[in-house]
Amino acid sequence: MLGMFCVRVCSGLMGFRAASHVRSLHSFPGITVAQIDEEVAKLLQLKAQIGGGDDGKHQFVLKTAKGTRDYNPKQMAIREKVFSTIIGCFKRHGAETIDTPVFELKETLTGKYGEDSKLIYDLKDQGGELLSLRYDLTVPFARYLAMNKITNIKRYHIAKVYRRDNPAMTRGRYREFYQCDFDIAGQYDAMIPDAECLKIVHEILSGLDLGDFRIKVNDRRILDGMFAVCGVPDDKFRTICSTVDKLDKMPWEDVKKEMVNEKGLSEEAADQIGEYVSLQGGMDLAERLLQDQKMSQSKLACAGLSDIKLLFSYLQHFQVTDKVVFDLSLARGLDYYTGIIYEAVLSQVGVAPVSTEAQNGAEESVSVGSVAGGGRYDGLVGMFDPKGRKVPCVGVSIGIERIFSIMEQKAEASAEKIRTTEIQVMVVSAQKNLLEERLQLVTELWNAGIKAEMMYKKNPKLLNQLQHCEESGIPLVAILGEQELKDGVVKLRVVSSREEVDISRAALVEEIRRRTSVA
Amino acid sequence: MLGMFCVRVCSGLMGFRAASHVRSLHSFPGITVAQIDEEVAKLLQLKAQIGGGDDGKHQFVLKTAKGTRDYNPKQMAIREKVFSTIIGCFKRHGAETIDTPVFELKETLTGKYGEDSKLIYDLKDQGGELLSLRYDLTVPFARYLAMNKITNIKRYHIAKVYRRDNPAMTRGRYREFYQCDFDIAGQYDAMIPDAECLKIVHEILSGLDLGDFRIKVNDRRILDGMFAVCGVPDDKFRTICSTVDKLDKMPWEDVKKEMVNEKGLSEEAADQIGEYVSLQGGMDLAERLLQDQKMSQSKLACAGLSDIKLLFSYLQHFQVTDKVVFDLSLARGLDYYTGIIYEAVLSQVGVAPVSTEAQNGAEESVSVGSVAGGGRYDGLVGMFDPKGRKVPCVGVSIGIERIFSIMEQKAEASAEKIRTTEIQVMVVSAQKNLLEERLQLVTELWNAGIKAEMMYKKNPKLLNQLQHCEESGIPLVAILGEQELKDGVVKLRVVSSREEVDISRAALVEEIRRRTSVA
Repeated sequence: MLGMFCVRVCSGLMGFRAASHVRSLHSFPGITVAQIDEEVAKLLQLKAQIGGGDDGKHQFVLKTAKGTRDYNPKQMAIREKVFSTIIGCFKRHGAETIDTPVFELKETLTGKYGEDSKLIYDLKDQGGELLSLRYDLTVPFARYLAMNKITNIKRYHIAKVYRRDNPAMTRGRYREFYQCDFDIAGQYDAMIPDAECLKIVHEILSGLDLGDFRIKVNDRRILDGMFAVCGVPDDKFRTICSTVDKLDKMPWEDVKKEMVNEKGLSEEAADQIGEYVSLQGGMDLAERLLQDQKMSQSKLACAGLSDIKLLFSYLQHFQVTDKVVFDLSLARGLDYYTGIIYEAVLSQVGVAPVSTEAQNGAEESVSVGSVAGGGRYDGLVGMFDPKGRKVPCVGVSIGIERIFSIMEQKAEASAEKIRTTEIQVMVVSAQKNLLEERLQLVTELWNAGIKAEMMYKKNPKLLNQLQHCEESGIPLVAILGEQELKDGVVKLRVVSSREEVDISRAALVEEIRRRTSVA
Repeated sequence: MLGMFCVRVCSGLMGFRAASHVRSLHSFPGITVAQIDEEVAKLLQLKAQIGGGDDGKHQFVLKTAKGTRDYNPKQMAIREKVFSTIIGCFKRHGAETIDTPVFELKETLTGKYGEDSKLIYDLKDQGGELLSLRYDLTVPFARYLAMNKITNIKRYHIAKVYRRDNPAMTRGRYREFYQCDFDIAGQYDAMIPDAECLKIVHEILSGLDLGDFRIKVNDRRILDGMFAVCGVPDDKFRTICSTVDKLDKMPWEDVKKEMVNEKGLSEEAADQIGEYVSLQGGMDLAERLLQDQKMSQSKLACAGLSDIKLLFSYLQHFQVTDKVVFDLSLARGLDYYTGIIYEAVLSQVGVAPVSTEAQNGAEESVSVGSVAGGGRYDGLVGMFDPKGRKVPCVGVSIGIERIFSIMEQKAEASAEKIRTTEIQVMVVSAQKNLLEERLQLVTELWNAGIKAEMMYKKNPKLLNQLQHCEESGIPLVAILGEQELKDGVVKLRVVSSREEVDISRAALVEEIRRRTSVA
């Protein structure tokens, strides 16, 4: 009855020998976590003392962490342009914005992502709470709603999320990446907020000018009803759903094989699913399936199909049906969807190569041109509420790393120069010893709200100063020389035309504003 | 000669007994880190198996991580206003912007923060690289410059940083907090970029309307020269400097005690330091100290004093000397400063209570009204460059959590309502069964770029719709009824005056634009 767990580290001339005897843990009720922690701490202390690195040969590597990147000023200019389009749309639709911390209590994320939980970044246990970096913005949003007992909100949230996924950076897949989420929480009439989410995707993708796109729509209830009428056992719905989710990367034959060979589905059931998931259409398809002998047997499927019909009628009023397809093969990865689901796919992927890598099942993992996705999740907030009170939610997440990649490649391919500052005028001296005069002039301009700069040199060369303007796209130059100072004027030079004109000091601010207001 | 390290966990009826014999490690050359890791992994596995929590009683707590907070829409509105002022200033001075990942390789941060390194958040070792959350934006900036071989840049970076510090949230001290950094990197003529950093602090604090403020200025070379001429041994410069740094929270007597009793300085040296650090002034003080018999013996101090004189002459042209004080007691915590240092302090702290908590020596830790700080760090980039090439840098960091706190409390105290959306018009129906007509009208408005919304109900009550406008500050209501539809008009209602006027459908967009362009 005497349990024993022993870790022994013997070293020296005798070398190392470790013996670890772990018997059934139930016979060790006396071991506490605190005691194990203590032993771990001792070992780690020893580790630190003997050097940290595995072999003592240490080479500092100058890089960012795997799967992450810096944004340089040009990339930031593109990023801000994309954000401004997206935020403009969210605001046009009346969304408020919130922010949440980059890490959450580990248990806040537990049980929300299924097998993708292995991709969550945990923080080191440095004493205190166990923390993890957020994996998406949806779970923190649900936590926020439950914590603040909010039952109605239309909010957007733009922030970075973290996944220890296999990065594919040229294709815009990173371990640190932005999500732009728009969600509507509240008890409303069916399909009105859901339709607005699709309208938003339509507006944003049109606004970003990424070429043609399609928005695929389906409903979890239709999928589940379909599985039921095709004879999939209840406990296999989710796993068969995951297999269906692979249809955009694998041919039907392979998907069927997985269903039959790996998931143990009957060939007959698989074939019936195969027929349904090949269907695409609009409101007419929903109508047809409502009459379908098999499908109409499932109340769940009928509820989903009726809502798809309602959705399309609202989408007609929103003028977006041209891009929306009811597609029974759309399944999406995450468990928490309860109703409508959707995903936007770019048809032409611009100058970017099309990714063919297998999707890992994570919700927003960027795959073949997929740039947005979302759906209805009516149960998630209830998972956080102490009394399980539900708050129905529907939302969409724009995956912008892929969009950045496309825009960056477009920008590189184009001749157009991207400005990384907004400087309107450069204060320049034509002679030596005019530093103080330049300081005074640039101060006048700053104080008047003009975006202005000068070189941080006592006696910069005129040519160098003008060259800087050409290179960074500064449109105007304010030139100071002895003569200009004597005359109380500034020589204003237009960089593009090299035209120069004397402007009285008193009129300078107005003149700069006038000349840069349109440009 | 046989070394032995043994961890033994014996349990069961016998209870727990741990024996850990760690002798001198130098007698255990055979223990490798990998072997320790293996033992640690086994212990952790055991920990996971026996339950995770310390006692098995698990209670899910609905909260954010310690020292962090969510931003609700009102707080976000304030935050965006503050950011817009700060970014406006940075752009006016021609700064580009960059972004870096939230975590860095652990070793990138190693050896940069002195004893504050203990406050760094590490990520869990989940295989792969060892990572830490960024502690400030300066070290990632220096890493970015070295990695991309950039020798000239003027950039701003606004992002969250992470410190496992003791939080004091009501006073704006968090474990996750924003920094707004502006830095100028490059080899330029003395004090010109340094002066611009002070001009920027002046512009931002004036622009945010936080009441009166002072910017204290000193120079590390003056401090070091002062220590030398006062008889502080070379190896005690940094530790005595840390003690001087406490002068804004402790009376001189206590600071002196620490110097003499804890740091072992002679009483005479301490008294001499005490005389110098009580001095405050402007260019005249620098001039006077250059003539000071003692101080003038230090070349280092003289170089610093000459630069302070030069700095003040530039600040005169920038029109900011009214707020700038040369203060010999300013020391600042971080090791990496090499020249001028500065710190901005609010004189009246608005409605916020003044913090009296001891500062922990970290650079930007928010203390008594301190809202910005920075200085010159000419050696940091060289620490990352493989060949040690230096890039001189000077910069400033605005600590905005404290500013948020003040603005939030101001907003709460004021009667003024903060809008959290920018909706211009709400589309409303006066009768039942007009959902489709509302959908069509709101689509017309969205497509014209108008910020509009409607209730997600089929038949919302007119009163509820109007009430929503009142509550959320929406200025206009577009009312649809049978009669309006028949007449091809929309009834436009001004929420504040309740005035109503019929506008033809074709003229509606223009009318809304006209009425909301000024408001």
